[in-house]
Amino acid sequence: MNNQKFNKIYSTQRKRVDNKFETLLKGKSPASLYQPCEYIIIGGGKRLRSFLVMLSAFAVGGKMDSVFNASLSVELLHNFTLVHDDIMDNSDKRRGQPTLHKKYDVSTAILAGDSLIALAYKYLLKDCHDNNIKRVVEIFTNGVIEVCEGQSYDKEFETKTNVNIKDYLLMIKKKTAILLQTCCEIGAVLGNGDEKEIKALSNYGLNLGMAFQLQDDYLDIFGDESEFGKSVGSDLVEGKKTFLFLKAIEKAKGKDLGSIKYILKNNGIERNQIPEYKNLYLKLNVNKEIEKEISKYTKRALGALKILHDDKSKNILIWLANQLLNRKS
Amino acid sequence: MNNQKFNKIYSTQRKRVDNKFETLLKGKSPASLYQPCEYIIIGGGKRLRSFLVMLSAFAVGGKMDSVFNASLSVELLHNFTLVHDDIMDNSDKRRGQPTLHKKYDVSTAILAGDSLIALAYKYLLKDCHDNNIKRVVEIFTNGVIEVCEGQSYDKEFETKTNVNIKDYLLMIKKKTAILLQTCCEIGAVLGNGDEKEIKALSNYGLNLGMAFQLQDDYLDIFGDESEFGKSVGSDLVEGKKTFLFLKAIEKAKGKDLGSIKYILKNNGIERNQIPEYKNLYLKLNVNKEIEKEISKYTKRALGALKILHDDKSKNILIWLANQLLNRKS
Repeated sequence: MNNQKFNKIYSTQRKRVDNKFETLLKGKSPASLYQPCEYIIIGGGKRLRSFLVMLSAFAVGGKMDSVFNASLSVELLHNFTLVHDDIMDNSDKRRGQPTLHKKYDVSTAILAGDSLIALAYKYLLKDCHDNNIKRVVEIFTNGVIEVCEGQSYDKEFETKTNVNIKDYLLMIKKKTAILLQTCCEIGAVLGNGDEKEIKALSNYGLNLGMAFQLQDDYLDIFGDESEFGKSVGSDLVEGKKTFLFLKAIEKAKGKDLGSIKYILKNNGIERNQIPEYKNLYLKLNVNKEIEKEISKYTKRALGALKILHDDKSKNILIWLANQLLNRKS
Repeated sequence: MNNQKFNKIYSTQRKRVDNKFETLLKGKSPASLYQPCEYIIIGGGKRLRSFLVMLSAFAVGGKMDSVFNASLSVELLHNFTLVHDDIMDNSDKRRGQPTLHKKYDVSTAILAGDSLIALAYKYLLKDCHDNNIKRVVEIFTNGVIEVCEGQSYDKEFETKTNVNIKDYLLMIKKKTAILLQTCCEIGAVLGNGDEKEIKALSNYGLNLGMAFQLQDDYLDIFGDESEFGKSVGSDLVEGKKTFLFLKAIEKAKGKDLGSIKYILKNNGIERNQIPEYKNLYLKLNVNKEIEKEISKYTKRALGALKILHDDKSKNILIWLANQLLNRKS
């Protein structure tokens, strides 16, 4: 199969999730709760997490259909994190639309997020069977706990001045990577994979998640503005302690170190300083450092797939990783 | 057994829950997440929901010990609702202490609440077995969904002018009663009760919850300030559409109706108007109406227990209902 065929499979599944979300909460009462929930879940997104659940089940010999509800579940959970994170980050826009708390209000957004967690469990349960339910709900619950811990670290880092790369990697692991791992693990367990297969897909998800988040950091400054979807350099403007920033502070000396530390002191930079800092990052070679890191996690993700038997699903998983990691936006 | 013995059983179990919560999250990282969670869960409370889980298991022949984790779970879930509701209601104090979002900040309180949901599932799972896990997690998840719906109705009612008693009863059912029902049902299922017993305890919890919430409304205006713990008349000051208010608007005529409608127009009254409105409620006999309603639900709750075989646990459940419904605070 070629890329075009893989793309077709992905877009078919993505469309199925989109279609299901179109009607999932339609007409439910109270409208003051379910309309906001609907607003966020039909608001788009890559449906990557759903696809990972389906692919993982498929990769161990299960049917994508048999985990469709579980695939909705992880997407509902992901949307919960978006809604609550947007409140905490005071973000105005999400996917080009007003964030939920801007469109409605903070109370509505808190409650919508809360319900999305519960709805996620509701849909997860639909695909569980007696022989796997305890394990699946445990994996999922652990995922929710870790994602909250990750967001807490992220908020902590905003005011903490001595964050290091190890801290940062732990944060993105919890905030992003573990949810992707959860998707793969749940899919593999529900698809009745054996322990080796479950472990392989779990590792794939975790390492893909790490590479994915690092790629996000990379694109924020080195991405092509026209393709990236958001304005380049936001992390610098917000003074976020990303891998690039932390690597730069590790490597810089003299005047360069002063420039990097200025970001800390000033809690970010002005938009017009972005080109200057981009050049500084290039001078310090931190672009190469992050590329190395992304490549490391990508290799681990792809390496984990080796033990899988089904070539078709394996090739889709490889294709998906390459798609995500070569993305421009 | 006499009341003193029942009280001893309750306070022993309550103390066990308190003690467990003292250490449950101690030293966990990130501290920015778990210290706030600890702050709320060790902040007191009646531990009524925990006790209902334990009593219900006991009532069907199970051991209280075997549902101890589940009893922590419902308490964690209850605390989640307190934390998020306090943000939405902009409350400053809870159990005499600063609310979580006042002690820390709104972002921290959102995340702490989110984690409490996940921790609730984590502890619930510990007491589930293959033969009951699907049912228990479904009951619990439904409880979370209903409580979010109830809170949404409550927020809706703040600005809605045509709320009626039926709407109000639906709201308190979802916001309060169903969680008590959930506790009893989970306890009964985990205790391996038969379907009749589960149904009986489920009905007990639901009706107890309705009576409990109506009693809360009653105490808000007719309670003894020195015993009630919060200042009498808060619902009137906030212009809340309680059973008393809605009954009063139903019954009042002429000038009295004008006085009641003034609460709506003015979004509440001044503190110094409380005695005047208390007298108006007495004149309209809405105190008798709510007493009738409380008595109706109490009878249903106690009536549901009839089919239970174990007299000891039945007597404790009856005692507990009477304790709650004769409470002054």
